[in-house]
Amino acid sequence: MTLSVAVSGASGYAGGELLRILAAHPDVEITTVTAHANAGQPLIAHQPHLRSLAHLTLEDTTPEVLAGHDVVFLALPHGQSGQYTDALKDSALVIDAGADHRLTDPAAWARFYGGDFHEPWAYGVPELAVAGGKQRANLVGATRIAAPGCNASTVSLSLAPGVAAGVIDATDLVSVLAVGPSGAGKSLKTNLLASEILGTANPYAVGGTHRHIPEIQQALRGAGADEVRISFTPVLVPMARGILATSTAPIRAGVTDAQLRDAWESAYAGETFVQLLPEGVLPRTADVLGANTALLSLAIDRDANRVVVTAAVDNLVKGTAGAAIQSMNIALGLPEDRALTVNGVAP
Amino acid sequence: MTLSVAVSGASGYAGGELLRILAAHPDVEITTVTAHANAGQPLIAHQPHLRSLAHLTLEDTTPEVLAGHDVVFLALPHGQSGQYTDALKDSALVIDAGADHRLTDPAAWARFYGGDFHEPWAYGVPELAVAGGKQRANLVGATRIAAPGCNASTVSLSLAPGVAAGVIDATDLVSVLAVGPSGAGKSLKTNLLASEILGTANPYAVGGTHRHIPEIQQALRGAGADEVRISFTPVLVPMARGILATSTAPIRAGVTDAQLRDAWESAYAGETFVQLLPEGVLPRTADVLGANTALLSLAIDRDANRVVVTAAVDNLVKGTAGAAIQSMNIALGLPEDRALTVNGVAP
Amino acid sequence: MTLSVAVSGASGYAGGELLRILAAHPDVEITTVTAHANAGQPLIAHQPHLRSLAHLTLEDTTPEVLAGHDVVFLALPHGQSGQYTDALKDSALVIDAGADHRLTDPAAWARFYGGDFHEPWAYGVPELAVAGGKQRANLVGATRIAAPGCNASTVSLSLAPGVAAGVIDATDLVSVLAVGPSGAGKSLKTNLLASEILGTANPYAVGGTHRHIPEIQQALRGAGADEVRISFTPVLVPMARGILATSTAPIRAGVTDAQLRDAWESAYAGETFVQLLPEGVLPRTADVLGANTALLSLAIDRDANRVVVTAAVDNLVKGTAGAAIQSMNIALGLPEDRALTVNGVAP
Amino acid sequence: MTLSVAVSGASGYAGGELLRILAAHPDVEITTVTAHANAGQPLIAHQPHLRSLAHLTLEDTTPEVLAGHDVVFLALPHGQSGQYTDALKDSALVIDAGADHRLTDPAAWARFYGGDFHEPWAYGVPELAVAGGKQRANLVGATRIAAPGCNASTVSLSLAPGVAAGVIDATDLVSVLAVGPSGAGKSLKTNLLASEILGTANPYAVGGTHRHIPEIQQALRGAGADEVRISFTPVLVPMARGILATSTAPIRAGVTDAQLRDAWESAYAGETFVQLLPEGVLPRTADVLGANTALLSLAIDRDANRVVVTAAVDNLVKGTAGAAIQSMNIALGLPEDRALTVNGVAP
Repeated sequence: MTLSVAVSGASGYAGGELLRILAAHPDVEITTVTAHANAGQPLIAHQPHLRSLAHLTLEDTTPEVLAGHDVVFLALPHGQSGQYTDALKDSALVIDAGADHRLTDPAAWARFYGGDFHEPWAYGVPELAVAGGKQRANLVGATRIAAPGCNASTVSLSLAPGVAAGVIDATDLVSVLAVGPSGAGKSLKTNLLASEILGTANPYAVGGTHRHIPEIQQALRGAGADEVRISFTPVLVPMARGILATSTAPIRAGVTDAQLRDAWESAYAGETFVQLLPEGVLPRTADVLGANTALLSLAIDRDANRVVVTAAVDNLVKGTAGAAIQSMNIALGLPEDRALTVNGVAP
Repeated sequence: MTLSVAVSGASGYAGGELLRILAAHPDVEITTVTAHANAGQPLIAHQPHLRSLAHLTLEDTTPEVLAGHDVVFLALPHGQSGQYTDALKDSALVIDAGADHRLTDPAAWARFYGGDFHEPWAYGVPELAVAGGKQRANLVGATRIAAPGCNASTVSLSLAPGVAAGVIDATDLVSVLAVGPSGAGKSLKTNLLASEILGTANPYAVGGTHRHIPEIQQALRGAGADEVRISFTPVLVPMARGILATSTAPIRAGVTDAQLRDAWESAYAGETFVQLLPEGVLPRTADVLGANTALLSLAIDRDANRVVVTAAVDNLVKGTAGAAIQSMNIALGLPEDRALTVNGVAP
Repeated sequence: MTLSVAVSGASGYAGGELLRILAAHPDVEITTVTAHANAGQPLIAHQPHLRSLAHLTLEDTTPEVLAGHDVVFLALPHGQSGQYTDALKDSALVIDAGADHRLTDPAAWARFYGGDFHEPWAYGVPELAVAGGKQRANLVGATRIAAPGCNASTVSLSLAPGVAAGVIDATDLVSVLAVGPSGAGKSLKTNLLASEILGTANPYAVGGTHRHIPEIQQALRGAGADEVRISFTPVLVPMARGILATSTAPIRAGVTDAQLRDAWESAYAGETFVQLLPEGVLPRTADVLGANTALLSLAIDRDANRVVVTAAVDNLVKGTAGAAIQSMNIALGLPEDRALTVNGVAP
Repeated sequence: MTLSVAVSGASGYAGGELLRILAAHPDVEITTVTAHANAGQPLIAHQPHLRSLAHLTLEDTTPEVLAGHDVVFLALPHGQSGQYTDALKDSALVIDAGADHRLTDPAAWARFYGGDFHEPWAYGVPELAVAGGKQRANLVGATRIAAPGCNASTVSLSLAPGVAAGVIDATDLVSVLAVGPSGAGKSLKTNLLASEILGTANPYAVGGTHRHIPEIQQALRGAGADEVRISFTPVLVPMARGILATSTAPIRAGVTDAQLRDAWESAYAGETFVQLLPEGVLPRTADVLGANTALLSLAIDRDANRVVVTAAVDNLVKGTAGAAIQSMNIALGLPEDRALTVNGVAP
């Protein structure tokens, strides 16, 4: 059986990555691609790397065009998905790569995003610890899925094992992320120009304002934390893709190194796409470029009384499009790794 | 009066940057440049950007060659300076860009470096808070100066104002730095190859092992902290130069935003080379490329109960060579900013 | 039937890329990986992006270890393959990614490489024009294949259609290539350090000395040129992978635009991996990252009386490893595109 | 005597670079900075690297605001200068960094730019060969100066010595340039976004359409060529600044290597800012970053019967702002190198 698939926002970076992965998915036929300003133009004009999809033409993003597919992916700016999801109530499976269906708390939505609040959907991070197991269970058979924020899922996967095992204190977390500009999309902003990014490291959204903060708090509360406080700072660096997140947490009193290491090892033993590296081996974003892999390394700093988890993720794959397709595979009972690779393109 | 100057390690990156700045210093004549493996070769073969110094030839790095100058700069690998400094006891002014004369605590030296311990020299970070004022006072008339570690001085300048003012807690600091590879020198190591650095972010020395940790602890104790504990993580990113340090510290109970802001503002009011940016403006490493400027921004995150200080520095200038020459200017009673610029080369 | 495959030089960049592609090849089992200095170490220590091959251990590169496989890939430094290929005379299929079996002219080998000359093997550029057709025909059933030089095949594919059609003059070609450093391998050389490559464009092998020149001449003579003279200049630019070749040739007298365009269009009509872009659309290396695609664009400059062909290739894929595996597929009668993708990883 | 200076287009890249250099010029006071959309805002908001000019506020770009200065620099988009230059007829010295006053041929202007033609001004490339000497002579005492196009002056300086000496054939030139995106200005265009430039090489304006072509033709005719035909291709590469131009020309029959080498050596002997490198030494853009230096290397390829001149220039300095200020120095009788450096910022 071949699934008919529609991808909206197909001229953007997240949409393009969904298409790149779906183009290699044996159970999928990409029948519809939509965009707003670029409707009527060939897809290849906006995604010149997607040679195998050169026959597709961008249609307008309307509920009518998106309806009638087995799977609909929305890769729209935050705040826009909601207006479509209401109209897609007859669609079998809808996956939103935007933020509109991620948060469960209307107050957090109001504070960090604003505008209409939409109901939360199944959160597309299968490996995330939740009460009684992993988020994967909530994705089986799901019909509405919210793909994660790329920074949020990277940090949540980094710290959830320690939270779930009760070995770290979630009330004083610090995460700093080196991120590539593709996470910000194809927006025409001066600070995203190549001349402004090449050869320089630029922090942004410093001091508790980044929109992924409530998503991390929600994920770690779901993993068992009573309260989550996190200092979160992203730094733009000159690489098109990638997130290298450094996350630290205080070690709870009396917890041994073995207990710490076991928390992370047991959390991801058997996982294909989240891998804990051996002690002393550190992750690099190049090693996950184009791959659905999150590479994590745990270091224990007894002088600072903190664990330091470094994590490498391709923001467009495991951070967004790969997570969405992995979640689709789970929802539909397909092999979880179908069309997804663990091997990065390096160097 | 023109000062005769010798620079050892002249074929490396720190040596090259000392020469680039000194070449524009009106009170200086660069009479001697030395190297080890490359002795006998023209300087321009190793520093092809230093067109105005094309007449110089690298000599061997020996105490005899270095002796007899008004100022001697040592830009040698850690552990090598000491063997020269003993022999240079007749030199008027010696400035070490290596680590050998930075640490006051032999135990810290033994743990993080190892090998012979050498006496600490005046620490070349003029703007750093110390008991009763600033480190500048200790540099006036100094004859032996230890230029700082680039990461260490960036983090120390970021956090010292809060420590000195007693508004932050120094026992749970977290710093994560995006750094360019030139800080690691011209060493032939696989992990420093362009193919290994381009398009990727790579952490290293994670978990409390980086050698700049004791230097930061010493600096912040000098600024008034009883105890300093810091989680410190550097991440290599694809830019030749630059440090973008994100440093966070818990806010002490009862401290107001105004008190926090005042601590940093008053610390650097009137300073030429360390500038606190207006609230909401963030530093970028491009803005200090080639400049002796450290740009700092303070954000107050009440949700996380932490201050976040982001700082941009050119590791080779304010981080090393510029700091060394600024310190030389102070030591010799020259205008502090001679040959140094505050304006970066951007974009 | 599953083919047992050995890859030598498995800790290098070309070897790593062979493995990345082969790991996704359904007809292949990678049974042996070898290296020299790193024998005995796990492959993953040198190729941390190849997560699916973490079980493999590097063996020593000896004829004995390499013998007994259905396919042997050699990714060794130039001049080393020959000593192995003699010993592998019983192997069913040997593919050399080095230069040792590319050139047919001993004099050209002596001048540009030196050392022992080895017999030429079937040249692994299937789409290349040759007398009476395409090089593909020579690869069907081949048992010994020489994968191309990455720059050479890019330039040859760019210009061969015009040569074969007799519409350009091959005696005054000019090619200038922007290339990433991975083409130079993992060698520990100062000029390949990240600090020497980031933020700068560096030409090398200027003035007729590059080793790919005789390979281009040979290919274009094979396409029908009586004499081939080419000015060839590579420029290292700060991207890990990729070749953007600009190749120009004089237009023969009386040749029309339509004839020119038809030469290139007909040459690559129906080809999967070499695609001529529509007039006015230009290739970018990002669009072929990780893909086996060569994207070409033809411009006709009547003022300069030259055609200008711009071409984008991933040096490690279509330039080396992808070409090798495409050639293997052809030799063994497998679908030509098996395990190879046309879609690049962008942005 | 201090010159009062106005810089229009001060929020752009060329304007910023003019200000960076002028800020260090001892004979200059920057009294006025203007912009269009950003008038009324502090300069530092748009040029955060120009710390020493933080006191300046952008005024509107009007003839009235620009009038009354000793020197006016125009760094405006092509086609806009003309409307101001008419109104500035009382200004002592006007230097246009745009194209409006570069071309002498109205037909060339009409074909490559369009719109109103403006009279040609003294061309700001002092080292360029012209009949009877160098362009420098035409700049002495000049009151109206057209700064060059960055690509144009780089190529013209590369080839003019051979043209002037009659040793190369100017009717079949080929130049390919690796260029950074800052040359395209701060325009908000999708193809200038960091995600579109990082990790990729992208050609543009291929096939004889680039606007710098007539400027090169004019310069080389000025150097003595009867007819100039040039194939010119720029390739955007991931570095903020820099031009690495590879220019080739056929060697005239009977010309010896010594004659070739002598043509270039004698052309630039004694020049501070245009330097011919020793045989076999190649230029790199890093070596001229922030410097007013053009580094050239001549290679002679007898197989291809072409000279190959590689040239490295900082597009914003020697390519634009540095050339403008060097020309100002000459026009006003100041030392030619005032405020300009030959040493690049590397690595």
